[in-house]
Amino acid sequence: MIGLAPKGLQRWFPILQWGRQYRGPQFADDVLAAVIVMVMLIPQSLAYAMLAGLPPEMGLYASVLPLIAYTVFGTSRALSVGPVAVISLLTAAAISRLGLTDPAQMISAAMLLALMSGVFLLLMGILRLGFVANFLSHPVIAGFITASGILIALGQVPALLGIQGGGHTLIELLHSLGLSLLETLNAPNWPTKAVGLITLLYLFWSRSALAPLLRKAGMSERGSTMMARLSPILAVLGSGFAAWYLDLGAKGLALVGTVPAGLPGLTVPDVSLTMLQALAVPAAMIGILGFVESVSVAQGLAAKKRERIHPDQELVALGSANIASSFAGGFPVAGGFSRSVVNFDAGAATPAAGFYAAVLIALATFLLMPMLAWLPRATLAATIIVAVWSLVDFSILKKAWNYSRADFLAVLSTIVMTLAMGVEAGVGAGVLVSILVHLYKSSRPHVAIVGEVPGTEHFRNVQRHQVVTHPHILSLRVDESLYFANTRFLEDLVYKEVSERPALKHIILMCSAVNEIDLSALESLEAINSRLGDLGIKLHLSEVKGPVMDALRRSHFLHDITGKVYMSQHQAVTDILLAE
Amino acid sequence: MIGLAPKGLQRWFPILQWGRQYRGPQFADDVLAAVIVMVMLIPQSLAYAMLAGLPPEMGLYASVLPLIAYTVFGTSRALSVGPVAVISLLTAAAISRLGLTDPAQMISAAMLLALMSGVFLLLMGILRLGFVANFLSHPVIAGFITASGILIALGQVPALLGIQGGGHTLIELLHSLGLSLLETLNAPNWPTKAVGLITLLYLFWSRSALAPLLRKAGMSERGSTMMARLSPILAVLGSGFAAWYLDLGAKGLALVGTVPAGLPGLTVPDVSLTMLQALAVPAAMIGILGFVESVSVAQGLAAKKRERIHPDQELVALGSANIASSFAGGFPVAGGFSRSVVNFDAGAATPAAGFYAAVLIALATFLLMPMLAWLPRATLAATIIVAVWSLVDFSILKKAWNYSRADFLAVLSTIVMTLAMGVEAGVGAGVLVSILVHLYKSSRPHVAIVGEVPGTEHFRNVQRHQVVTHPHILSLRVDESLYFANTRFLEDLVYKEVSERPALKHIILMCSAVNEIDLSALESLEAINSRLGDLGIKLHLSEVKGPVMDALRRSHFLHDITGKVYMSQHQAVTDILLAE
Repeated sequence: MIGLAPKGLQRWFPILQWGRQYRGPQFADDVLAAVIVMVMLIPQSLAYAMLAGLPPEMGLYASVLPLIAYTVFGTSRALSVGPVAVISLLTAAAISRLGLTDPAQMISAAMLLALMSGVFLLLMGILRLGFVANFLSHPVIAGFITASGILIALGQVPALLGIQGGGHTLIELLHSLGLSLLETLNAPNWPTKAVGLITLLYLFWSRSALAPLLRKAGMSERGSTMMARLSPILAVLGSGFAAWYLDLGAKGLALVGTVPAGLPGLTVPDVSLTMLQALAVPAAMIGILGFVESVSVAQGLAAKKRERIHPDQELVALGSANIASSFAGGFPVAGGFSRSVVNFDAGAATPAAGFYAAVLIALATFLLMPMLAWLPRATLAATIIVAVWSLVDFSILKKAWNYSRADFLAVLSTIVMTLAMGVEAGVGAGVLVSILVHLYKSSRPHVAIVGEVPGTEHFRNVQRHQVVTHPHILSLRVDESLYFANTRFLEDLVYKEVSERPALKHIILMCSAVNEIDLSALESLEAINSRLGDLGIKLHLSEVKGPVMDALRRSHFLHDITGKVYMSQHQAVTDILLAE
Repeated sequence: MIGLAPKGLQRWFPILQWGRQYRGPQFADDVLAAVIVMVMLIPQSLAYAMLAGLPPEMGLYASVLPLIAYTVFGTSRALSVGPVAVISLLTAAAISRLGLTDPAQMISAAMLLALMSGVFLLLMGILRLGFVANFLSHPVIAGFITASGILIALGQVPALLGIQGGGHTLIELLHSLGLSLLETLNAPNWPTKAVGLITLLYLFWSRSALAPLLRKAGMSERGSTMMARLSPILAVLGSGFAAWYLDLGAKGLALVGTVPAGLPGLTVPDVSLTMLQALAVPAAMIGILGFVESVSVAQGLAAKKRERIHPDQELVALGSANIASSFAGGFPVAGGFSRSVVNFDAGAATPAAGFYAAVLIALATFLLMPMLAWLPRATLAATIIVAVWSLVDFSILKKAWNYSRADFLAVLSTIVMTLAMGVEAGVGAGVLVSILVHLYKSSRPHVAIVGEVPGTEHFRNVQRHQVVTHPHILSLRVDESLYFANTRFLEDLVYKEVSERPALKHIILMCSAVNEIDLSALESLEAINSRLGDLGIKLHLSEVKGPVMDALRRSHFLHDITGKVYMSQHQAVTDILLAE
């Protein structure tokens, strides 16, 4: 079990920890998982490279060294790193914005993007800045992934049907698809449409109906699920064979075409200041989104076995994986959901499973590359559409609407902005709206005027309970930390109550829910204290928490306060009444 | 007394409320205050127009209609609206960035800026968006005003000494002043240096020493303070007389020069799409900063008399004042600190005092304009320097350092960025850093593992108190609302504790300090609940607040939770122990 974060070298190289106890049974488990993951990864990697607007073989390049880097640096036993859908879409958007036309330059830009997001993640890991990822709230991520899934699926329709078209927003995509569909009436490309639609139907069918069928035929629960997950490789092999046997390439079917066998040597992408500037924001966004997806997946899978991952070290591991991808001629990678679940279910015992998968994929590239020439692009498009279709889930909108309008607003902005303005604007809008909504809510906290429940020492809201109050004592309970966003609210509230109560002599702020008082709030309290003092009204505090009291002791407030600080609200009221 | 926010027409036109009870004694008080404020406002308005890079007479234009608009719409009895230092500096920065050289175009741009910030404030008021101003925390404002004061004072040195130079950042200013001072050795402009430095010394002296001197001579406390505050008018009259009598204009002293007598007719500034775009951000910033300054001043003065102001209506009033300033040929205005304090101390009884001051200033423009021709610009520069000098106060740095490093970081960023990059970057950096710091702090909340203090029903931190715990029950108290910024922290924490406690069967989250659970946190709780469930560990909640419980009831969580929700932590532990 990977427990507490270790110190020293083992913190930075978790392999030194688990590697020491590595034994034969774990080896067998890992190799089995590696074989299964490899079979699933090959079509997925090719497809996501195409989704990123890059040559399919780059998907394989991005699946070897990154897995090895993650084996050395990663803390999750199940996470499988490589090309993933949303990151590939972001890569496509970032590269297309550069306006490059030369394929060699686009490849170089993708490698540079991987390098930059890798360095960004590595720095965040070394500086322990993983909390930045918290800015992406769950609803925003859910909305973003749904909207991205729609954009990705629509973006693959041209390759699926052998028509023109493309775009980065819903309107661009629908507009160009509409025009292309009209054109295709005159020149229908039947071979592409046949391969694309048959593959699509097969994949949707195998995803939903294959496992039950195999179970009916007597296969085990686990075996049938696994087979259904690996069925895309059949689509790749079948459609490749059909393209070769029927020579569909000559009849209008777009094929991947000849690519160099094996893996390229290690390279360094071209770096220029213009490119660095143009790719800085996308690189940071890719890094953070990849990190968030990876950590969510890894944390979920680790918890199932009472294990833990270390988010800060995951930044280092993902950063290294991206840097490795760049040097290997690949593009940005992350820990994917579906591939990691397959790895987990296949029984991966340690991160070494990733290493074996990498070796197997490297071997496969030597054997497969010649056959890739016959792989139809329509098959890859169908693979992508089926993979992302499960990501599209509008139920988050309904859930958010029912739970809180604030969360609904954040989800809706994310979805609308992603569809209307593209992925980067969508993430940006989501983050901004959720922060603004949070600040808005905490700037108008729930406040209760409280009184004592007769016969007890409890103080409750005067509007909800029959309680005892005194005309010259006002007890206020603020259910929020006091900080800059709500200091004006607090001042306004106190002055309002004072202006309505001519007999008032004491105000007690009950601080049981105040987790922080920042300098703005301290200055507000000082101003309130001094103005109330001028009016002959004393300000008291009660039930101040330890850490808040520690902070107040570092200021002059406890000397200046006209009243006292009491342990409990009951004690405060009793003491004031006694003193009269 | 202005009490609760009134409804209907009176909400939008507070004059209908206080005007109904307007009587003779109030009239006498208001007129006296108006006379005093008028005498103080004339030199200040001229000087701040020059600070904004505009003809001095625009300061008078900006002091008539805005005061009348505020009389109709304002809720503060003391606030005095007109040109203020920081807003004038922001105006200068915004206009200079347009790269205009034609003075007529600059005047038109300043009028447009006033119109835009007025419309912006009016919209915020109608939509009740006053909370946006909360984003400017006290320490950020204090840092910004200090840094602005330095920039303003340095920016006036050229006019004070009759040399060249200027700039919008500390480095630009120091660099150009250094060069100009070297040049001035060859061609010293003695008349300007004499007028500038003598006026400066007189103003500093009168500010600190005049009031005590007058008190010694037998004048009342209030009278001597008032005289000292009005002494700048003597500097204006004296230096103007000297310039005329000695014909210093011919000897190198820069004078204001001939301006048209009286007030201009109502005009509408030129509007173009380019200008609207270029001025949008500065207009919003000027609006918000002006609003924050005005509300702070108005709230402080109102509280002294147990009165209240209505911040949302203040947005309407300030918006109207800026729109009025634009139509009257003025520039952006706000409620100033020093002028409002003078108005308050002079005994202004209602907002009508502002109306009378406006009438007096309008009369004065007819009488004074011919004399303005002889007013030395060096005198105005000295007036500005003395006025802003009191704003420069670095003690906020020390205070913030002692109280909390987070607040210190926000102040320091604001000061450094304002000095290094200019006013807009400074405010932006301050707002950004304070929000980030707040999110960072609440993303790593204080958490305590708690146990029962023997013989009581209280639960306290196991690290601070001798308490009773049970190996199969873990009680966690999180001292923060649960929301997107800390959900990952919570998950990580729970999984860490679970991975370290093999005997664990129950986790109780004590929610007494949880003021909110947003959708992200709800989903985290659902994930935690389900993963703990898989491990045979039950999740319970205790001491959930009313509003939080209301939200949870709108979700499925209360059906899905493996454990129970208890009224108190004591009840939770007792119940779990009994059930065994």
